[in-house]
Amino acid sequence: MIKVMDAIRFETSPERYKHWRLELSGAETTGVARLVMDVKEDQGLGEYVLKQNSYDLGVDIELADAIQRIRFEHPEVRAIVFTSAKDRIFCSGANIYMLGTSSHAFKVNFCKFTNETRLHLEEASAASGIRSIAALNGVAAGGGYELALACDEIYLQEDGNSAVSLPECPLLAVLPGTGGLTRLVDKRKVRRDHADVFCTVAEGIKGKRAKEWRLVDDVIAKSRFDAATSKRAEELAKASPRAQAKGPGLPLAPLEVQRSIGENVGDRIVSQYRYVTLTIDPKKRVAELEVRGPDHEPPKSGDELRKLGNGWWALRAFRELEDALLDLRFNFLEVGLLVVRSRGDGGKVVAHDKALAALAAQDWLANEIALLQRRVLKRVDVTSRSIFTLVDEGSCFAGSVLELALASDRVYMKDDEDHEDAIRLALSPANFGALPMGNGLTRLQSRFLNEPERAEELRGHEAPMTTQEALKAGLVTIAPDAIDWDDEVRVAIEERAAMSPDAMTGMEASLRYGGPETLETKIFGRLSAWQNWIFTRPNATGQKGALTMYGQPERAEFDWRRA
Amino acid sequence: MIKVMDAIRFETSPERYKHWRLELSGAETTGVARLVMDVKEDQGLGEYVLKQNSYDLGVDIELADAIQRIRFEHPEVRAIVFTSAKDRIFCSGANIYMLGTSSHAFKVNFCKFTNETRLHLEEASAASGIRSIAALNGVAAGGGYELALACDEIYLQEDGNSAVSLPECPLLAVLPGTGGLTRLVDKRKVRRDHADVFCTVAEGIKGKRAKEWRLVDDVIAKSRFDAATSKRAEELAKASPRAQAKGPGLPLAPLEVQRSIGENVGDRIVSQYRYVTLTIDPKKRVAELEVRGPDHEPPKSGDELRKLGNGWWALRAFRELEDALLDLRFNFLEVGLLVVRSRGDGGKVVAHDKALAALAAQDWLANEIALLQRRVLKRVDVTSRSIFTLVDEGSCFAGSVLELALASDRVYMKDDEDHEDAIRLALSPANFGALPMGNGLTRLQSRFLNEPERAEELRGHEAPMTTQEALKAGLVTIAPDAIDWDDEVRVAIEERAAMSPDAMTGMEASLRYGGPETLETKIFGRLSAWQNWIFTRPNATGQKGALTMYGQPERAEFDWRRA
Repeated sequence: MIKVMDAIRFETSPERYKHWRLELSGAETTGVARLVMDVKEDQGLGEYVLKQNSYDLGVDIELADAIQRIRFEHPEVRAIVFTSAKDRIFCSGANIYMLGTSSHAFKVNFCKFTNETRLHLEEASAASGIRSIAALNGVAAGGGYELALACDEIYLQEDGNSAVSLPECPLLAVLPGTGGLTRLVDKRKVRRDHADVFCTVAEGIKGKRAKEWRLVDDVIAKSRFDAATSKRAEELAKASPRAQAKGPGLPLAPLEVQRSIGENVGDRIVSQYRYVTLTIDPKKRVAELEVRGPDHEPPKSGDELRKLGNGWWALRAFRELEDALLDLRFNFLEVGLLVVRSRGDGGKVVAHDKALAALAAQDWLANEIALLQRRVLKRVDVTSRSIFTLVDEGSCFAGSVLELALASDRVYMKDDEDHEDAIRLALSPANFGALPMGNGLTRLQSRFLNEPERAEELRGHEAPMTTQEALKAGLVTIAPDAIDWDDEVRVAIEERAAMSPDAMTGMEASLRYGGPETLETKIFGRLSAWQNWIFTRPNATGQKGALTMYGQPERAEFDWRRA
Repeated sequence: MIKVMDAIRFETSPERYKHWRLELSGAETTGVARLVMDVKEDQGLGEYVLKQNSYDLGVDIELADAIQRIRFEHPEVRAIVFTSAKDRIFCSGANIYMLGTSSHAFKVNFCKFTNETRLHLEEASAASGIRSIAALNGVAAGGGYELALACDEIYLQEDGNSAVSLPECPLLAVLPGTGGLTRLVDKRKVRRDHADVFCTVAEGIKGKRAKEWRLVDDVIAKSRFDAATSKRAEELAKASPRAQAKGPGLPLAPLEVQRSIGENVGDRIVSQYRYVTLTIDPKKRVAELEVRGPDHEPPKSGDELRKLGNGWWALRAFRELEDALLDLRFNFLEVGLLVVRSRGDGGKVVAHDKALAALAAQDWLANEIALLQRRVLKRVDVTSRSIFTLVDEGSCFAGSVLELALASDRVYMKDDEDHEDAIRLALSPANFGALPMGNGLTRLQSRFLNEPERAEELRGHEAPMTTQEALKAGLVTIAPDAIDWDDEVRVAIEERAAMSPDAMTGMEASLRYGGPETLETKIFGRLSAWQNWIFTRPNATGQKGALTMYGQPERAEFDWRRA
């Protein structure tokens, strides 16, 4: 367990950024913001030097924050230009020494977070009309080019030096695993044989060939580069539907979490947010997440929404949930099981879901809140911890909170005739489209792959369901009766926490994603799984492996057997 | 390198089977064959005991052969009943001691082969109308149940003992990786939370719940089991379109390969088939595959086809290719690169492709040959070796042989104005639908994901293309001129063979499969990649790992960090 003091924290804000500058001058008229990468070599999270605009988790936390804040705080921004403040280098990717000295579990979770950040950038364009341009004013290598691949358009400066490259395979014996291989062939649709050459040429490709092979959208002379990329960004901003976003943004407030540890809380670690509590039991290797329903009325208009602001449950609860999830992922690696509970009034959750849906259809800010809920729930789907949801007296698994249950590997619901009214599940419009998984299906659709019509049939079902009704509707895995509940749940939790963490990760990654695949699921499925494998291989991370040996005079030694 | 004497061979035939019985009595009238599993404990390929109808590669080679021979040799068979000759056990899956003592590279290649066999069983139903029933007259555990999952229908005997289970995760800390997890949710569409419970309960599930959860199609009392499953098989046979297949079948003849090794062949290992030569250079870790075009006229009718029989190039060349590929995969693990050449008359390849297409539309046997070509080419796609195709003077990369080039990671074509006529590529109808990849796209469609219309535009292009034309058409990666050819090809081969074998495996698995995903690609992508990762993890295969410790009194010890 990492001590609370040393824990990695995910909250930040532009005035605290070390490695990025969010430049907004002129954005009111042009609609264009600039995100300038200027990594401070000596300000990494660990004992390595972040040379050549290479990044670590701390750099990416700032990037994720910047994209999030542009969405909420700067409705005037309709295009982002990514560029570098360094001479001759745009970004050289994830820091190799950081990767070489990290534990496997950290590497995998790091890659997951950076993948999520890049997907969020793409979602900002697709769902919010915030276009992005990679203005490569220097070498974009590895993760640097992968960031560019996540932008809508890529422009490369023609200066005899700037190039794009994915040197991971030839130099480090690992993959371009932050979406690189997948986006090459699936997003930019680079021909597979061209991609093969590109990914094996350490020095990369520049000039005419980079454009011909679709690695970049254009190559522009240095003298015209800034003007041309700015102009293109302005064009994109002008054509964006976000031009209709009115009024001031909503500055995202700090989350105000209280953390307790030690004897007072039973030797557990408790993170108390307003609507969320995360409790870690290090001995049992179990985390409990309690989500509380709304304690106020939902807003009925854009004005009321803005008055509530950060206080609105629909925004605050999901921001808290996101922070708790990331805390769990990075700071409590040995916790294998997340138990989800809820407390509150399911009817109020449904009322807030309906208010959000009604407002989101016409108000950009409400829409951003709905999209944030969607992103947070997608983070749940790809979190490599077993997830059990417990539905009992006083819980409020309805609508958007019910999605947590639907994202779980199992749902236990207490069957107690004496308290039937207190133990209910309920659906809301949020279960039927606004919160899809990465594979494009709603969680109900993913649940009923065998009976696609069943998800639709439930649409009209407004009344809260009893345990027996929920079981019949297919929303519940196991419904122990009141007498057996405590024992059955306890044993299930103990058994699950005793399983091999690796087997559970592989099993859950497979069972959670039946049905169609998308760019997103291919990144977390095929690409990440191969990368995880390669990270464990002596050819990469062994004593004589290429990642380990990078920068040393000797060459890596390989076991040549092909698996 | 494995010595030629110790090499694993893939040719077999029913009279040599040790572990399976192909029972054909009554098939002429019922259309039903029985494949009875009766594994000989002491006849495994290695030093382990194949208890409880567990299998190793040798067992699966027989199964693959049986399915192939039913297709070609027994047109009267329209349904297969899989069952066991052992008491109380159908099949307990891949042998655990075999897995525990195998090298990682062997394990991965073993799993690939068994996955292919199961996909071939499904293809026999989908494309040839050979239905399959798993008649589980005992416990079907792990790979035993995964074999059942590959059948069209699964019936479980009700006898208080028989059950289905996937105990890999709880018992061995590995995955049900022979399609198990994928077929559960994607083929049988078992609800994800039910699948989660099922895959973590070592003892499995039987009776009513097995049916309710869609794990089996029905549970049948022991007294009625044989009769009921036979009757169901007869019903399926009766309704199968293969009822129109008119006899007799074509007995598949031995391949007659000559193998040479040693000084006479430059310290290489040469496997000489009629139309294929595989040459292994152990020092360079490079294999060269030469495919020779037809040396006879194509058949013009079903009668002529039957006279040619095993001698027809379209069948023989692809059977040889399959055998050579499997030889490479298992017996030369350290070879990282396959260089493909061809020799012959491209026009003749096109003529044979056209003859095959014309006959396949109306003749079951021709159709089986076309399907065999398809399966063999799919094996190329999932072979974890880099593949370069060299097109030079005298080559015959046309139609079905051109597919080898399109399956390659790169295509080099010599650009020689003086010999323009001798260096040509050509298309045939075979490139436009009959030979799809596992993702459902043709290799041309996979190549032109960015310009889907381009594959269609090429359809009309009948004339052989010069190097410049082929380059312009997008069929060639690099076209060195005659002066540079030798050096450029040599350097490319040396560079590729020096890359990390793991990185190349992961990279190629990603770049080869742009576009849509199917059950098949999910098995080789997501599922196999996770399984490969887990196979490398100490929690499974370390000294205290669960796979290693299986059967010992002590419990496995886990590193609990979740990746």
